[in-house]
Amino acid sequence: MDFNKAALEMHEAHHGKVGIVSKVEVKTRDDLSTAYTPGVAEPCRKIKENPDDVYKYTFKSDMVAVVSNGTAVLGLGDIGPEAGLPVMEGKAVLFKEFGGVDAFPICIDAHDAASVIAACKAIAPTFGGINLEDIKSPECFEIEETLERELDIPVFHDDQHGTAIVVTAALINALRVVGKKMEDVHIVLNGPGAAGTAIIKMLMTAGAKDIIAVDQFGTLYKGCNSAEAHKNWLGEVTNPRQIKGGLKEALAGADVFIGVSKPGILTTELCRTMNKDAIVFAMANPTPEIMPDEAKAGGVRVMATGRSDFPNQVNNVLCFPGLFRGALSVRARDINDKMKLAAAYAIADLITDDDRSEENIIPGAFDPRVAEAVANAVAEAARESGVARL
Amino acid sequence: MDFNKAALEMHEAHHGKVGIVSKVEVKTRDDLSTAYTPGVAEPCRKIKENPDDVYKYTFKSDMVAVVSNGTAVLGLGDIGPEAGLPVMEGKAVLFKEFGGVDAFPICIDAHDAASVIAACKAIAPTFGGINLEDIKSPECFEIEETLERELDIPVFHDDQHGTAIVVTAALINALRVVGKKMEDVHIVLNGPGAAGTAIIKMLMTAGAKDIIAVDQFGTLYKGCNSAEAHKNWLGEVTNPRQIKGGLKEALAGADVFIGVSKPGILTTELCRTMNKDAIVFAMANPTPEIMPDEAKAGGVRVMATGRSDFPNQVNNVLCFPGLFRGALSVRARDINDKMKLAAAYAIADLITDDDRSEENIIPGAFDPRVAEAVANAVAEAARESGVARL
Repeated sequence: MDFNKAALEMHEAHHGKVGIVSKVEVKTRDDLSTAYTPGVAEPCRKIKENPDDVYKYTFKSDMVAVVSNGTAVLGLGDIGPEAGLPVMEGKAVLFKEFGGVDAFPICIDAHDAASVIAACKAIAPTFGGINLEDIKSPECFEIEETLERELDIPVFHDDQHGTAIVVTAALINALRVVGKKMEDVHIVLNGPGAAGTAIIKMLMTAGAKDIIAVDQFGTLYKGCNSAEAHKNWLGEVTNPRQIKGGLKEALAGADVFIGVSKPGILTTELCRTMNKDAIVFAMANPTPEIMPDEAKAGGVRVMATGRSDFPNQVNNVLCFPGLFRGALSVRARDINDKMKLAAAYAIADLITDDDRSEENIIPGAFDPRVAEAVANAVAEAARESGVARL
Repeated sequence: MDFNKAALEMHEAHHGKVGIVSKVEVKTRDDLSTAYTPGVAEPCRKIKENPDDVYKYTFKSDMVAVVSNGTAVLGLGDIGPEAGLPVMEGKAVLFKEFGGVDAFPICIDAHDAASVIAACKAIAPTFGGINLEDIKSPECFEIEETLERELDIPVFHDDQHGTAIVVTAALINALRVVGKKMEDVHIVLNGPGAAGTAIIKMLMTAGAKDIIAVDQFGTLYKGCNSAEAHKNWLGEVTNPRQIKGGLKEALAGADVFIGVSKPGILTTELCRTMNKDAIVFAMANPTPEIMPDEAKAGGVRVMATGRSDFPNQVNNVLCFPGLFRGALSVRARDINDKMKLAAAYAIADLITDDDRSEENIIPGAFDPRVAEAVANAVAEAARESGVARL
């Protein structure tokens, strides 16, 4: 199937992919007086008296903003807000179709972190949560951290944390398959950008103790003196054995390779240097760091990619629709680590002990159980960790 | 009917009044690859190559932002963005139900003009037009003027110009009923705030030559030295006979009274001092400047209010849905005076010579012909005045 051609036809036929629907009818004067003046003044007054009533009387309780400035769209790079709009509309479609969540794409004309932050803070009263998307690194770090701190609604950068949650879910099950523990394994992460860094943080939250991050110049270690601030931080908090060198030195005896980098960076030869029952997640898209057959030839036991045409697809759609549905359902103020970890376990635990295998560590994108399981787990974690309003 | 109670129930039952609908199905892997990656990259590339393609491949071509900072909501005043959200959702409902236009409410946390302008400019790439709503004066003037100048999509403050267009339509027909001409009549406008000022400008565009604006201190004239800049400007460009004094002095012999002020300001006695076949539009809400029976007792021949329970309701819903539908249909860069005047005449001309009377100068809010007539007239005027992209 020629997806490029099909996509142009689909996008032109409908003028994009999401629209607005009125949830009420306005066919009579009484309808008009209830949905609009004079009746509408009454919910306004209630909200003015009790600000939390905005969740009761408006769509804020169901509405997520999908915000991007178009600076890191798919593999296309900095293509700007207008050109990024089809992706953000697509994300809104997935929110609706997979999670029943109303999401509205907002592509903003704002390049620097301060402008993106200002725009998000300005529109925040309208939304129950903000899903940041396709904003380039390093600005995305400051943007998300500042908004999380300063807004009382959840702010979630899906490229970072959505990926991290699904990778964690997949690794939980991969480790179950090979009979190893998160606390014990040596993990190598290649490509510590926005997603890679979030994966490292999340795996540490999940119990991992020995992670080595590798960028194009080699391993990150204490005093590695990277030009990127977050990499120097990673050099401090990871790599407990302080391995120096390149991917080769990092991989020797490693149990897990996680790639969010570029095609071909991993070879059959390098896989052979890994520990027994090695796990390889090669998630460069569309061409992974190593193809599954090449990894298997190198003795790798469990293999995952970002692609739908191989087993074990790491796909963010497993997470964000249910995650936001759960957060919105309890009017959460935040999406914290406990909620993220709950989401990862909810995804992993959908694969039963009987069904789990080298080729089945993560549910398929269309598994109808996923969004609800994630939503319930996230809502419960939000309540337990004190960030739920309900 | 208790509209307050009905409104609370309606707003709570649906969590507000508008939602998101996906215009495409995502039931299969092929659907996912067309609506999202990898297919979605193709419309992104097309838009990057040719920015106007954003209208072809995204919802921008159908989508209006209803933007408010909640500083002048209905009669409730400065209640803030959250409390204003029910009104903006209501507006979005009317856009959809009356004009088939997708509109999304954006309530912004921004008080001063510069912050509102920055927020609107930031989100502009997403929208085909911006409807400003319930933003207090005088900030609304600077906000609208700046955005009109700096953005290449239409920006329209409905409280100003929507009201002005519908008043102009009503006055066109009222003058036809009494057999007078716009060029000849003496008009008194009481309450030259945002709406009043826009009405004056619009009536001058429509040919009116003798308008006197009256505020709480009296008539505006050259050198009247108001504390509000726009009123000094009005003193320069209106009141050609330089009448000084109060409403009484202004009204003596006047053909038309237009009130956008407060209840009870006009009396039967004052109506008697007006010219023969007087026209009174008393639009203070919910209680007009004078009740219809009191005006009639003073010899007024044509009477209009903002209320649905009297004849001749001046209601903005007659204008904005069709106006934006027309502007969007030709991808207009602007909503200019020619388009506004075309909208006014389109509304007025729906009342035929046979049907026109003292009690029938303007179509009812639910007249199904209105939005299409306005849209067609506005689209044609946009093309003729060179602001249409299509």
